[in-house]
Amino acid sequence: MSVRHQHPRPCVAVDCVVFGIDLERQDLEVLLVQHDLAPQAGGWALPGGHVSFDESVEAAAVRELGEATGLERVFLEQLYTFGAVARDPRTRVVSVAYYALVNLADQRVRAATGARDAAWFGVHGVPALVLDHEEILAKGRERLRGKVRYQPIAFELLPPKFTLTQLQQLYEIILERALDKRNFRKKITKMDLLVELDEVQADVAHRAARLYRFDERRYEKLVKQGLMFEL
Amino acid sequence: MSVRHQHPRPCVAVDCVVFGIDLERQDLEVLLVQHDLAPQAGGWALPGGHVSFDESVEAAAVRELGEATGLERVFLEQLYTFGAVARDPRTRVVSVAYYALVNLADQRVRAATGARDAAWFGVHGVPALVLDHEEILAKGRERLRGKVRYQPIAFELLPPKFTLTQLQQLYEIILERALDKRNFRKKITKMDLLVELDEVQADVAHRAARLYRFDERRYEKLVKQGLMFEL
Repeated sequence: MSVRHQHPRPCVAVDCVVFGIDLERQDLEVLLVQHDLAPQAGGWALPGGHVSFDESVEAAAVRELGEATGLERVFLEQLYTFGAVARDPRTRVVSVAYYALVNLADQRVRAATGARDAAWFGVHGVPALVLDHEEILAKGRERLRGKVRYQPIAFELLPPKFTLTQLQQLYEIILERALDKRNFRKKITKMDLLVELDEVQADVAHRAARLYRFDERRYEKLVKQGLMFEL
Repeated sequence: MSVRHQHPRPCVAVDCVVFGIDLERQDLEVLLVQHDLAPQAGGWALPGGHVSFDESVEAAAVRELGEATGLERVFLEQLYTFGAVARDPRTRVVSVAYYALVNLADQRVRAATGARDAAWFGVHGVPALVLDHEEILAKGRERLRGKVRYQPIAFELLPPKFTLTQLQQLYEIILERALDKRNFRKKITKMDLLVELDEVQADVAHRAARLYRFDERRYEKLVKQGLMFEL
């Protein structure tokens, strides 16, 4: 192991790709903040900031996410570390990117994250971003699409009882493409993951659809094996 | 975006989990080096070192891998960034871990990596490692097992023409478990990925097995879609 004692050291920062899913609006959105530093002050950026000497990288991500969104205890996972030499023109910054998933159908989330100089953008209508943040966002979208096929990261965004249509919509939003209904239901059924309830949707104008819940034990087992949705 | 101008800054380092696969020995091995720094000098460690101010994190990983193994142009991919505050007792170090895959059946690889204070260990017989390197190694094994199910990272470790048994063995080594032969062949056949050749193995004592190669166009297409081996 070769250790070079060199000065100065790169800065370490965190950046967070915060995805918001709104099942009702059928929308995948991303939270952006206004960059406050020259030379790109006023440009849109992913929320983030520097890692202090005495805090872990993950703690810094949780802190920055909290400062940017007012939210605590959201799904947050490390995405990728961006370490190109010239990615920030001000100084050498190595950025550890994280991604988070929040439920925008929850009005408290919309309210909390509406404060400050932050705004939600649909992923297909994102403005130009500062630094390499477009690359970070692209990596986040790619990870989300891939991850949902073998980990149940999005399931907590569903209500405890849900329809098959809602489940399919969740996948469609994250995968950013339409799925064939028949094929989707066949695959979901084959996984034996859902429990059909003796209940149907209430308060709907159209024909009320059957409600389902996850079979938690089966679910845990599939997660352990490495859950696979071939969608 | 809150930026804190604090001193001192954490160091940024890279550590490499170098996996070696030996199809003939049916072995998954990891390359370790002897740590040269107090207080754990002489302990076994993953090869790695500090990122210079003027090199990208990835370039540092390639450089450290080259210094440790004498190898260039191997499969190398970012694994995870380890950023706990006290992970290194000497100073604050944030480590960006990478993993690499090399073919140990290639005698040039064995020869190149046998130099210096380095040694290969079977993953089931790894000695105690310094710092949090056991955690980094565990993460590497987990990633390798997961990755091989949806990306063809290991295919380049096969000879251009191979038997179905060799293909199965490759998967068994990486997944670290035995696979049912019939089931494996059924799934592989269903993927329509292999081209059966008019050739059989040469120079074998037992009954010579049929040889196959990958259908490259089909292969590219599956990779794009997100290849899935449900093994």
